[in-house]
Amino acid sequence: MKAFFDDRQSKHDPKHFMANGAVLPSPEQPERINRLRAGAEAAGCVFEAPEDFGLGPIAAVHSPEYIAFLQNIYSRWRRIDGAGDEVIPNIHPANRSDGYPKSAVGQAGYHQADTACPIAEHTWEAAYWSAQSAIAGADCLASGAPAYVLSRPPGHHAFGDLAGGFCFLNNSGIAAERLRAKGLRPAILDVDVHHGNGTQGMFYERADVLTVSLHADPERFYPFFWGFAQERGAGPGLGYNLNLPLPRGTGDDDYLKALQTALMRIQAFGCDALVVALGLDAHVDDPFKGLAISTPGFARIGAAIARVGIPTLFVQEGGYLSEALADNLTSTLSGFQNA
Amino acid sequence: MKAFFDDRQSKHDPKHFMANGAVLPSPEQPERINRLRAGAEAAGCVFEAPEDFGLGPIAAVHSPEYIAFLQNIYSRWRRIDGAGDEVIPNIHPANRSDGYPKSAVGQAGYHQADTACPIAEHTWEAAYWSAQSAIAGADCLASGAPAYVLSRPPGHHAFGDLAGGFCFLNNSGIAAERLRAKGLRPAILDVDVHHGNGTQGMFYERADVLTVSLHADPERFYPFFWGFAQERGAGPGLGYNLNLPLPRGTGDDDYLKALQTALMRIQAFGCDALVVALGLDAHVDDPFKGLAISTPGFARIGAAIARVGIPTLFVQEGGYLSEALADNLTSTLSGFQNA
Repeated sequence: MKAFFDDRQSKHDPKHFMANGAVLPSPEQPERINRLRAGAEAAGCVFEAPEDFGLGPIAAVHSPEYIAFLQNIYSRWRRIDGAGDEVIPNIHPANRSDGYPKSAVGQAGYHQADTACPIAEHTWEAAYWSAQSAIAGADCLASGAPAYVLSRPPGHHAFGDLAGGFCFLNNSGIAAERLRAKGLRPAILDVDVHHGNGTQGMFYERADVLTVSLHADPERFYPFFWGFAQERGAGPGLGYNLNLPLPRGTGDDDYLKALQTALMRIQAFGCDALVVALGLDAHVDDPFKGLAISTPGFARIGAAIARVGIPTLFVQEGGYLSEALADNLTSTLSGFQNA
Repeated sequence: MKAFFDDRQSKHDPKHFMANGAVLPSPEQPERINRLRAGAEAAGCVFEAPEDFGLGPIAAVHSPEYIAFLQNIYSRWRRIDGAGDEVIPNIHPANRSDGYPKSAVGQAGYHQADTACPIAEHTWEAAYWSAQSAIAGADCLASGAPAYVLSRPPGHHAFGDLAGGFCFLNNSGIAAERLRAKGLRPAILDVDVHHGNGTQGMFYERADVLTVSLHADPERFYPFFWGFAQERGAGPGLGYNLNLPLPRGTGDDDYLKALQTALMRIQAFGCDALVVALGLDAHVDDPFKGLAISTPGFARIGAAIARVGIPTLFVQEGGYLSEALADNLTSTLSGFQNA
């Protein structure tokens, strides 16, 4: 299977992460790249670097003011007396319709939903190339071949104009929109342990891209405010979003049952391209401890997806440092290819 | 002039404050109480402790889920492994209509707009008594006598269900609603250097309480997302909110001109009670450096308010530690009483 990655994606190395009022090291470390690459190669992936498709496919789902913010906020931040090393928000609007400030601090609060998406000197460059890898993957799928994208930093918590949860540009959403622009009818299946809130938000009022997410119940799990079953889309998109929140600690068998529900909805949508937002953090040993999928369980997930028979693009989302990270990716992709 | 304060208001001593990505000591220190009390007494105020009016007058403007959150979040937070000493949010909803989580971390993000309103063991108790002092002041005004309320922690950044900017319960809003419940027709005039965003939000769709705020332009100043001139109220409240954003560094003369605009609007509203949300941080030496009012300038502000002839209640908002803090309060209240 073809795979896509650019070395510049390694240049984002976030330091700040706050949980429960305490500052901790960020779990979204560049070392993830080495583990994921090894795991993909063990499943037969052959990596290549993407070409530069420019801003167009990114701007198809992200607002101009948000893209400009990501491009220039770090240099503006550096000009503030006493500023910290990374751009971290400290005040947030109550609603997106509140006023848009000119200052760096105000815009940080407007465009960063949480303290888990600090922006440093190379963040934009890394996010840009992560997105380019996703676009290359989409084009590969459009030309008839499934692919894996090592998209890191990840993307599914990024809305059209809002970063969050380690994410800046929504790689899965960018890939789906790219497929749609190529005349295909895509669905996005998000199997990350966290709800794909950014992806949902991006397509919430649209009927041309189906979004489906399986995840730990957000009542007591990040991203807290999204991922509930009653979120079904709005306006023309009503019925085109499906959330399947699962109890904490759900294991392989119950997960596979919920996955069948998701896949039936995807089949009913009649799509001809499937973007899998592939988080591996549903694993039992992942530091976030949301669900309890085993390494062989990921092979079953990959196989179930393959059996639906829709041309599939895997776009990497979460999955953090544990002994099993590489194996979980190998298992998923092997299960898919051997189904 | 009568004045109200309860010693339990001193028990809130916040530590965490983040600005520009750096953690700093909180400027909202208990020492403010000593300075403000001395300043009020120098203007002839005689302090008394409020009686306990209960939750009713607070719940008239704050939601039950928010009040329950303030009451119980600290003890819930303490049960989280590795939690920090204070409740500080790390993820926020994009809109108030997003889902409401059950977890402490999720609710902190829903109910705390920024990192400048940490909640510790005694925060609720101090905020409760700060609100009781404001209710006592409102009752004093309703019985015919002007009053000063040393309401600390302050209140004007607190919305109906959202803390922010050192504020938890909106003392000015609670006082205005108390006056309305007593059959009066109140307006709120906010002269704090920061826009009174919580107060505005609380009454934004109501025509029975006029809200007016003079403040440093939020384009580059806290609270960033609110305080713009085009925010005029909504629904039945359209036209019942007036924002007068001022250029950074505005001094006495230009401020007094804007104040005349504010006071004309208040007179046109035909009110019989005026709540002054009395921030003193528009002073030239205040650490926030937003405007440049002099100490004698505050006497002119007090005198201009007095000349409108509406029975007036002063409710303390911001104003931080500087050599001039006590004198600025003395100046305002003396200017008012001697007009």
